[in-house]
Amino acid sequence: MTELFTVHTPPDAWARFSEHFRPQVRVERVATADALGRVLASQLISPQDLPEFPRSTVDGYAVAAADTYGATPGLPAFLAVVGEVAMGKAATFEIGPGEAALVHTGGMIPPGADAVVMIENTQRVDASNIEVFQPVAEGQNVVQVGEDIRRGQPILTPGRRLRPQDIGGLMALGITTVDVATPPVVGVISTGDEVVPPDQPTQPGQVRDINSYSLAALAQRVGAQAIRYGIIPDNRDALEAAARRAVQECDIVVFSAGSSVSYRDMTADVINALGAPGVLVHGVSVKPGKPTILAVCGGKAVFGLPGNPVSAMVIFDLFITPTICTLLGTNAPPKTKVSARLARNLASDAGREDYVQVRLEQRDGEIWAAPVLGKSNLIYTLVNAEGVIKIPLDSNGIRAGEWVTVMMD
Amino acid sequence: MTELFTVHTPPDAWARFSEHFRPQVRVERVATADALGRVLASQLISPQDLPEFPRSTVDGYAVAAADTYGATPGLPAFLAVVGEVAMGKAATFEIGPGEAALVHTGGMIPPGADAVVMIENTQRVDASNIEVFQPVAEGQNVVQVGEDIRRGQPILTPGRRLRPQDIGGLMALGITTVDVATPPVVGVISTGDEVVPPDQPTQPGQVRDINSYSLAALAQRVGAQAIRYGIIPDNRDALEAAARRAVQECDIVVFSAGSSVSYRDMTADVINALGAPGVLVHGVSVKPGKPTILAVCGGKAVFGLPGNPVSAMVIFDLFITPTICTLLGTNAPPKTKVSARLARNLASDAGREDYVQVRLEQRDGEIWAAPVLGKSNLIYTLVNAEGVIKIPLDSNGIRAGEWVTVMMD
Repeated sequence: MTELFTVHTPPDAWARFSEHFRPQVRVERVATADALGRVLASQLISPQDLPEFPRSTVDGYAVAAADTYGATPGLPAFLAVVGEVAMGKAATFEIGPGEAALVHTGGMIPPGADAVVMIENTQRVDASNIEVFQPVAEGQNVVQVGEDIRRGQPILTPGRRLRPQDIGGLMALGITTVDVATPPVVGVISTGDEVVPPDQPTQPGQVRDINSYSLAALAQRVGAQAIRYGIIPDNRDALEAAARRAVQECDIVVFSAGSSVSYRDMTADVINALGAPGVLVHGVSVKPGKPTILAVCGGKAVFGLPGNPVSAMVIFDLFITPTICTLLGTNAPPKTKVSARLARNLASDAGREDYVQVRLEQRDGEIWAAPVLGKSNLIYTLVNAEGVIKIPLDSNGIRAGEWVTVMMD
Repeated sequence: MTELFTVHTPPDAWARFSEHFRPQVRVERVATADALGRVLASQLISPQDLPEFPRSTVDGYAVAAADTYGATPGLPAFLAVVGEVAMGKAATFEIGPGEAALVHTGGMIPPGADAVVMIENTQRVDASNIEVFQPVAEGQNVVQVGEDIRRGQPILTPGRRLRPQDIGGLMALGITTVDVATPPVVGVISTGDEVVPPDQPTQPGQVRDINSYSLAALAQRVGAQAIRYGIIPDNRDALEAAARRAVQECDIVVFSAGSSVSYRDMTADVINALGAPGVLVHGVSVKPGKPTILAVCGGKAVFGLPGNPVSAMVIFDLFITPTICTLLGTNAPPKTKVSARLARNLASDAGREDYVQVRLEQRDGEIWAAPVLGKSNLIYTLVNAEGVIKIPLDSNGIRAGEWVTVMMD
């Protein structure tokens, strides 16, 4: 009854998996106004110059800069005001030598003008003339045609998660729909005769389903759609039936497996029945999370996760988050990282990655990472943690006081 | 026509504003399964011990630890197997001295047992007896009643943005609905005779609406609901009518104001007509973003933002994001911070906060923050930026090569 599987390092496990998992990014068109956080799926090129006309950046007078050279408060330049450019209107007249036009911030500069004098540096002499007290250089206080972005210039590349300013930039160019990646569908199958739905009372020996919900939420957080297939009893036919349905309806199928050895073997068998090549990795040198299965079945990604909620979440982050991002054609969103000193010794084995849940504490102006006490398979270890530190493959552990990088959650 | 307003520092502006803005957090009840990212609005206490029965963490035999003391492969302990605890079932029998029961990972420990011997450290002698090769200590391989969380223990506090593991922790306790903050409603009013909707072709002098969309997306990103009130022409009656409607329907009203001085004055007048105390701050020592209005009108938060998209977004982050978080009863979500060396000198004035859009560049193994070139009021300055650095109030600038903190976006 001891487990016989070849344990792979996380990078090796991922390499084996991604050799067989080479999906196409599915694309859909959405309104740019609704595209916040969506992953762009096509290269976007500017269809026009922005702005399309020279604009003033101040309230003032559009002039030919040369007409203001040498102007001082004592010896101002004297210019004739030949008109005003109304906001939102084209300048319908031209500026000649010695002439100026009143313009507003964001308004169009008339032909013949190449700079704008701020209103504060002028004075009205009479109804149609001004004095200018300070010279302006050519182009001063003007945004030139195409200065923001030029027609034909690449603006956003595929894989970009659209931010508020990106949406603004697209609207500025009249790009009101965009091609984005369709959210991958992640199916979560919870198993175990001891597991009951959270809204039901428990009998002695029973526990409520955690992983269907925490794993679905992890999937949603990174941009996938999640389907929960409920709790499947510990029996091969029921499990295979649920798995066949899930693998048909989803891009990724995740088994939150019963934790006994016999149950894990059953999960591997069922996965192998779902399609070729089947199980690629069974066992990863990660703590917690060793009895993990990575598989590809008929082009779908399939994972068997340990039943304990901490292992399940660590493994989700390690393998399923990047799989979702592959399907979205993007990289995993970066986590906030905090440098902190480790509050106590942590042992590890070389050849294994350890993930340790920590809280941050302030002590004497320094940040310390305190491992959350308690058994590593308890859900409140995760709830009470603010982040995680990784003890790398080649390390035998980290001593108290050493600096570590905490990946915040 | 020069501007006469008292400029406040950002902390002073915020203090004036928050003295008058003291909203109640509105609460609604949602399914825990749908509560990812929502802000918890009540203190949660565990209604039960978790687990409710002692559980094995391994596959093996539940025993009285004392029966295994001194056991070795050469001199094993000999125990009678009196039963098996099925997964999901209560242990219906007791363990007496010299007895053991087969248990599975996650299964219940029967009364009389206080530890579990891993199956690898045992051997079946015959149908009803085993040998144990290694002693276990009391409590070994057992999760005790209440070891994960105890009945009556506080589990999550108001203000928490619920993470996947929090949802898991609630489900484990049968807490399937939770009180969360109702998303505040942010109304965005875009103004300016030059502004046209993004799906319309532009005539010379016209530009497309950016801010309605970028500001709405900023509001959504931090957990608010956004309503766009369209583009209001530069006229006092139209503006006041739109503003009255918005202030009635929303918790926060944001004017993306026309940028001319006269227009800003009109905005301030309209805001003062919406309710007491009206405009509290008109002008903040921030670059870009100086001509900002902070107001409270009849309990609603009202902001006048400069029309240029970069200023508008900087000011949104500085004042409106924390206002939304006040209404949610939480803190602003932390931004990812990156330490980098500044790629070129940046001048500033003491007494003013400057926000400079930057990109990160790798040079000789170091990260450098390169200010995005181009006028600060162009939307593609923001689109091309990866983050922002702040030059503090008391600084005259930062020299090239100095270390700065980039707040990533």
